[in-house]
Parts: sequence; structure tokens; C-alpha cells
Amino acid sequence: MAPTRLRARADYESLVDKYDTFLFDCDGVIWTGSTVIPGAPAALDLLRRRGKRLVFVTNNSAKSRQDYVQKFARLGIQAEADEIFSSAYATAVYLRDVVRFDTAKKAYVVGGSGVRHELEAVGISATGHADSALPIDLDSIRDVRADPDVGAVVCGLDYDISYRKLATAHVNLAENRDCLFIATNDDRTLPGGRYMYPGSGSLLQVLVHSTQRKPLVMGKPNAPMMECILQRFHLDPARTCMVGDRLDTDILFGISGGLSTLCVLSGVADEASILAPDAPQATYYTASLGDLAALAA
Amino acid sequence: MAPTRLRARADYESLVDKYDTFLFDCDGVIWTGSTVIPGAPAALDLLRRRGKRLVFVTNNSAKSRQDYVQKFARLGIQAEADEIFSSAYATAVYLRDVVRFDTAKKAYVVGGSGVRHELEAVGISATGHADSALPIDLDSIRDVRADPDVGAVVCGLDYDISYRKLATAHVNLAENRDCLFIATNDDRTLPGGRYMYPGSGSLLQVLVHSTQRKPLVMGKPNAPMMECILQRFHLDPARTCMVGDRLDTDILFGISGGLSTLCVLSGVADEASILAPDAPQATYYTASLGDLAALAA
Repeated sequence: MAPTRLRARADYESLVDKYDTFLFDCDGVIWTGSTVIPGAPAALDLLRRRGKRLVFVTNNSAKSRQDYVQKFARLGIQAEADEIFSSAYATAVYLRDVVRFDTAKKAYVVGGSGVRHELEAVGISATGHADSALPIDLDSIRDVRADPDVGAVVCGLDYDISYRKLATAHVNLAENRDCLFIATNDDRTLPGGRYMYPGSGSLLQVLVHSTQRKPLVMGKPNAPMMECILQRFHLDPARTCMVGDRLDTDILFGISGGLSTLCVLSGVADEASILAPDAPQATYYTASLGDLAALAA
Repeated sequence: MAPTRLRARADYESLVDKYDTFLFDCDGVIWTGSTVIPGAPAALDLLRRRGKRLVFVTNNSAKSRQDYVQKFARLGIQAEADEIFSSAYATAVYLRDVVRFDTAKKAYVVGGSGVRHELEAVGISATGHADSALPIDLDSIRDVRADPDVGAVVCGLDYDISYRKLATAHVNLAENRDCLFIATNDDRTLPGGRYMYPGSGSLLQVLVHSTQRKPLVMGKPNAPMMECILQRFHLDPARTCMVGDRLDTDILFGISGGLSTLCVLSGVADEASILAPDAPQATYYTASLGDLAALAA
């Protein structure tokens, strides 16, 4: 069925009535970079007042949930750490609850402090963060060895990536087939102002190619993140709506999870791409999340 | 035709008579790590005394040709810088002679000092080597910009790889479609004692994935390296023999260039793999390069 454009007040009332929980992508929906999208805070307030559960779903693994709460606060939006579901947190929850990761083992992290802090918060030792400070060359590389205590290699966006980290992750994955290979997300690029830069899905390719192994990818649009969210909040997919600006990540993510979806035009997708018959078919679309704020008037 | 096993003195005499030039892979043929293969220096001496031209062909771009001469000397083998054809040197020669690279522009190098020194030796400015010392994060990444003076991104093995280098290479390749994308080689892994580690062909995958561009790969088994060698030494492929220990790089490299090939058993390939009908078919094979030393007796 073709996506339904929401326009009238009754359309928005009907949307809010139909769902108990709204999952939100953040960049392009609630803010763009460090600028809040007009009306978005008021729309979130309205949904809260109507008793809806809000979950903010982000592939960004560089920040911890506490860092995210601070970002929301700076933009004048109240949010709780429990409402934030980052790919780093999803990775930690997945290792603890789904894999039942042996906490006598540790995770080798090629990623930022967000991943490390979330793993540690669920009782999993994380290592690797200090390794980039050690230089490496053709001789000292021989000291990089597989460690039988490494039970998982976890990759995310890593501004501090180094050959030593990559080599250490590689030997653990190559020498120990039981070592899990998990990626927080596989975004090819990362927006950074005027340009795009390599995303964690690109950094990950070093190890995919060198080990010839495929990682389990947690983040949108992949299934593990959705499984974690549905399980964590005991959600009924039929009463849950995913709101996003990207068809190939957010909307596909919602569709794959059996959710309804709302695509907004304040980010990447435009109306033509939403209506293209070969695109993931959103349930609804509207100009901006701010449109819902009209219900408060 | 199935590979011919060389055994008798007459076989080796015939081999030496048939060719004016021998190209050699080094690791697994002349040495293993830092141990010389028995008889290899004597075999090289014999070929020199018979007036043969010797060329040492290596995908290792970390070292300059002068560094290589020193490695040969430490192993008791005399070699001239002009006899050494590394993928770093091939890249420099290719940019100068084939591409006729505009020397008003510069090359951004994600690679070691071997690449930088070889580029500078042919008059091409190389940049990037100082970038890993600068930290980077989500805010400072905005300072990473495309530079219209960067005419090529050159990637090799880089023990000093960093997100800043990768981001800088990415924006130059993504924003400027005229910027050349060249890889010294695409070896998936790199031997380092007990383990294999990610090779430059694996590091390269970050930019291949993030930019969706394919690099021109210089090193074995690719054609550009062979073109450079044939042109540099004015070789007749019919009178040239490639000696190596790997079927999928060295022997394939020789075959693709129209050369005869000699596979030795002192490295990666064993007799069964050499005789496998779906393997690149070497012209000859023998236990070791040292076998040729018998002709000196």
C-alpha cells in the first residue's frame, strides 16, 4: 500500500490514538546536527502528555546514553537515559541477555568510549582502548597475539583507530573461531557538517576482509537492535510506530520489525523517494515531527 | 600444459639458457622472514656470473629501495637499488611515467615512509604522514576538508593509520572525482612471525567502502607493476622468467605478463597445489631456488 500523507488534524489524532509507543531516529527527525527541528520538542511533549512511551533509537555508538541525555538537555528536550537506545547499549544488552556472554571473558573494542562504558555497565570487561597509544612496526607486530580470554570483538565508530587495534582484533577473530564478531552498526558514512566521512560500517571492512568473517550487526536497519528494543520494553509491534527520515535505515528497520512507520521530510528522504514504488514503503509520511505539535493547540 | 618439474642438471642448464632476465619474489624464495633460504645467495651469484639480469619484485611498500638493499646486505646478498622493484617504487614510476602526474599537485599518502620517499624521489610531493599526530573527534572532524591540490590518494601498508588520515583521504576521493585512487598492493594479509595480520588490501577496504570507488592496484598480481617492470628494463617477456612461491600472486603475475614462471616449494605452494588443474599453471617448479646453485659445481 502506498504511504499515506498526513495533513489534517484528524490524521494526526488518528496516528496518536493508534500507537502506544513511538520509536524515534534523532538526526533529521528531532535535530539536524546541533539545531533542533522546529516543533519537535513540543511534539514530544504532547506525546508524553498523552501517555505514550518514547524511545530514541540511534546508531551512534560513540556516546553513552548519559552523553545523549546531555545532548537532549542542551537542545531543551527532556529525556531519560532509559528512553535512549543506542547501538552501543543494544550491543551490551545483546551480549548480556541474548548471548549470555561469559563475564569471565572480555570484549576487545575497536570503538569509542560509548561502547566501553555500556559494556562495563552490564558487567562485561572491555579492553583495547589503551592500545592505540602504543606504536607498532614490522618487528613489534610479533607481540600482537590472540588472547583466549577475548570472547568478543566489538567494532563501532572509532576516532582512535590504529593498526595495533586492528591487528589485535584480527588475530583474535582469525585464531579463535569462537570469538564473537559484533558491529554496533554498519553505516557506510557519517555526516559531519559539510562533508560525509567514513562510518563504522566502512572501518569494519578492514576486519571483514582480513578475517573473511561476517560480523553480527546490531544497529538499524538490522534485526538484533529491534529484537533488543521489543524485548526490553515488552512492546507490541502492532501498537508501535517507528519515526525516521531515512528509508533504507529507519523505515526499513520499522518494516522489518513488523511496526508501522512514519517518514518525515525534515532529513534525508523527500516526497518523491518516499513514493517511489521500489523504496521501502512507509505507512505514513509528513513534513516534520513538528506537525504533531498542532494537536496541542 | 602441466608444470614441468626440474630435477636434473640439464633441466637447470636449459632454464638458465632460455632466459635473459629473472624476476624474483623475495619472501619464501630468497628468505623466510629474516632467514636466508639455503643456496639462494649462491644461485643468485651463479645467475649474475652467467650475465643474467636480476630484478627483485616485492609488494612491500613500507620500505624504500635503499632499505631493501640493506636487508639484502644483512643476509649476505649483494643487490643494487636499481634491481629492486617494490610496489612503492612502481607507484612512483607509474605516476611519473604513465599518468604523467602534474607535479604542481600532491599525493595524499595513507602508507609508510617507503611510499613517501619513492614519490619524493621522482619529484612528487607527498603529504599525510604528519596527520596521525593530530587528534580528532566529532567536532574537529569538520576541519577535515577536500584539498583541490591533492591529485592522488595513494594507499599502502600503514602502521600509523588513523581516522584523520582515512577521513582526509575519503573527502578528497569523494569530493574530487579527478583525484586518482591508487593502491600499492592489495595483499589481504601480512605475515608477521606466528600470525598473519591485516595487509594493505584490507586497510584499503575502508576507503573502497566509504567512497564506493575502486583503486588502481599496482602490486602483484596486477598488470600495472608488470607494465612498469617491462618498460623500465626494456624486457622481452619471452626471455623473462618470474620466480615465486605463491601461485595466486607471483605465478599469476608472471602468466598475466606473458612470462615463463618457476614456482619454488620453499614458501607457500606445495607440489599438490602446483599440480592442481584449476591453479595458475606454472611453467616449471623445483624444490628451492638453491637447486640452481648446483650448476656452479
